Amino acid sequence: MEATISAITLGVKDVEASKRFYAEGLGWTIEQDFGQWVSFSLEDGRGFGLLEREALAADAGTEAPAGGFSGVTFSYLVGSAERVDAVLAEADAAGGAIARAAHEAQWGGYDGYFADPDGYLWKVAFGPGAQKLAE
Amino acid sequence: MEATISAITLGVKDVEASKRFYAEGLGWTIEQDFGQWVSFSLEDGRGFGLLEREALAADAGTEAPAGGFSGVTFSYLVGSAERVDAVLAEADAAGGAIARAAHEAQWGGYDGYFADPDGYLWKVAFGPGAQKLAE
Repeated sequence: MEATISAITLGVKDVEASKRFYAEGLGWTIEQDFGQWVSFSLEDGRGFGLLEREALAADAGTEAPAGGFSGVTFSYLVGSAERVDAVLAEADAAGGAIARAAHEAQWGGYDGYFADPDGYLWKVAFGPGAQKLAE
Repeated sequence: MEATISAITLGVKDVEASKRFYAEGLGWTIEQDFGQWVSFSLEDGRGFGLLEREALAADAGTEAPAGGFSGVTFSYLVGSAERVDAVLAEADAAGGAIARAAHEAQWGGYDGYFADPDGYLWKVAFGPGAQKLAE
């Protein structure tokens, strides 16, 4: 796995409020706004997303968002479903934990999560049309 | 403030264990290893650091690490102490909160923290010799 973070997602209480803070308050340009999900493009081309906290926890298969879930996920985008499985296997072998087994996603992609030793969650995903892929 | 994250720091329970996971497990190259603080250089030039969780909380002026502290901080590196003050003031005016007022740091720099609406912490820092500065 390369030393790369493709995107960062913050689980937030109120997407509108957080969007105002980053967009109007700090002056960042919104890339996509689907209401429940808002993303900004960082200057290095990486993504920075805001998603309702419970939705992010559910996506990651984390049952108790108020518990150990930090509210932050790191994304790692690869070029195929097979590569998703391979990266998850690598993280598992490295002493991480598979937080949510990979499955076909509603949006047509394929993704799963692993947790590092402290429970920080990495989403490993393949999606048609994604750019800036990692190995 | 630009849409930029200069570095990400994870507060971890056991720096050695986390270092093994990322370095030996995932194969990432260690950039700096000071024992309590280990950093990796991401492929985009951004930093990814591991710091003992209580030390990170203390640096951010967060009293209760087991409470609302997510365990993650984002760093924003600028070119002067004056610019640190200006970015903190901008975040404050945007509806953020000054989590820890800026002060001279032990390492010769100058830094402070603001919290976004969900309490996610951004460290705004000036340090002699830092590269890849944001505005």
